[in-house]
Amino acid sequence: MFLVPQWSKMEKLTVIKVGGKIVEEPQSLKQFLADFSKIEGYKVLVHGGGRSATALAAKLGIESKMVNGRRITDEETLRVVTMVYGGLVNKQIVAGLQAIDVNALGLTGADLNYMRSEKRPVKEVDYGFVGDVKEVNAGILADLISKGIVPVLAPLTHDKVGNLLNTNADTIAGETAKALANYFEVTLMFCFEKKGVLLNENDDESVIKTLTPEFFENYVSQGIINGGMIPKLENSFEALNTGVKQVVITRADQIHTTNGTIITL
Amino acid sequence: MFLVPQWSKMEKLTVIKVGGKIVEEPQSLKQFLADFSKIEGYKVLVHGGGRSATALAAKLGIESKMVNGRRITDEETLRVVTMVYGGLVNKQIVAGLQAIDVNALGLTGADLNYMRSEKRPVKEVDYGFVGDVKEVNAGILADLISKGIVPVLAPLTHDKVGNLLNTNADTIAGETAKALANYFEVTLMFCFEKKGVLLNENDDESVIKTLTPEFFENYVSQGIINGGMIPKLENSFEALNTGVKQVVITRADQIHTTNGTIITL
Repeated sequence: MFLVPQWSKMEKLTVIKVGGKIVEEPQSLKQFLADFSKIEGYKVLVHGGGRSATALAAKLGIESKMVNGRRITDEETLRVVTMVYGGLVNKQIVAGLQAIDVNALGLTGADLNYMRSEKRPVKEVDYGFVGDVKEVNAGILADLISKGIVPVLAPLTHDKVGNLLNTNADTIAGETAKALANYFEVTLMFCFEKKGVLLNENDDESVIKTLTPEFFENYVSQGIINGGMIPKLENSFEALNTGVKQVVITRADQIHTTNGTIITL
Repeated sequence: MFLVPQWSKMEKLTVIKVGGKIVEEPQSLKQFLADFSKIEGYKVLVHGGGRSATALAAKLGIESKMVNGRRITDEETLRVVTMVYGGLVNKQIVAGLQAIDVNALGLTGADLNYMRSEKRPVKEVDYGFVGDVKEVNAGILADLISKGIVPVLAPLTHDKVGNLLNTNADTIAGETAKALANYFEVTLMFCFEKKGVLLNENDDESVIKTLTPEFFENYVSQGIINGGMIPKLENSFEALNTGVKQVVITRADQIHTTNGTIITL
């Protein structure tokens, strides 16, 4: 039997994942952080930084190799993403939030041993220093959050034997939402280039307001939902099945509104 | 009247500042972190990273300009030190400590609004984005430390209006020791290339065991202590006058021993 968490006794928390582009330019970052600060309740921000990593790698003469949208992370590339994700992007976001009185704390999975991963086994593709999440230690984070601190998570984990590992930001957001669902009523929000999941991909206003498993299967069978959106939504339902209250897919400039697609069980 | 802190009621904490070289090479870093983990009581580590910053800047075609041993920090250089200090060096130390079961948390002054600074006014030299420390918010840090967390501080602060600022690691260590003296019995330890303050600069074994203000003035008048060691020791006495119990100057491979020069009032 699946036990529904006792949300009525819990405080609301939103885990927001934002892609690199918005947080990598000073102007759009400032606007995004202002919108972020307007979200009510406790908050966690998970960011990317791929464009800056690719740009720095190029300046250093390191080729960026991507397979299925994932970065092949050799030793040199790991140094680049550690600098860009853990340093440049993370600390600029933290300083930007502090400037508007949001008490941000930048973290990788190594900090506080928050998220342990294992180097992905080599199968058809050798992704290099890329981590698959194995353990989330959310207790200290939950405690800090309840004191008003806003964690800002970089897409890096560690293997607990001394190595940092490059880890997909969507995965970090999902695992964080699931782990924090033991402490809060969690909404997981993915920022996307569209206003939400669309009924008609050519009509930006045709946002599906609410999506349940039944509607999802129906839309998939009709071909309305297809391609890369299917695994994204399957992951969302998995998060819901693990205690997350709702998943929202919306555009970055709408995070402080009730727009977007709300995914529930 | 100067009130001596009630050290008998306080737990011991050591703030250790280590220069870049040791923490910038995997082998020496590993040995240093093993020694660091052997220090009893609560601990804070403050690190540099100048060699890696200079190396990255050179690869990116950015010239490193130093005046009086301080880095002139233009906008491009600020990005470099944010990446190297806040990302590369800090996160490698954190991952290295987690591997030996030290629950490290990497921080800049922006994180938790821990250390606020102001951009240094332009006088004879324009240091650029360099911060002079104005405010240390040690309360949350003290709380985390008492829970067994080991802060690892990068030499970066922020101005609370959105800018990160490059800040001398010795200064961060001194300000941290002074602020934490309200909560702990603090020893401030500076790692140095010699085994301590020497009576004879040509004899590495002539370490002065204990240094008080009287002995210090005596040694200075005799020319035994001279040059850059004078401001270092003056800063040490200032820390002692602000509640720090003792300052130790020692070699990095001796931090877990009782060797080195102990400076007290």
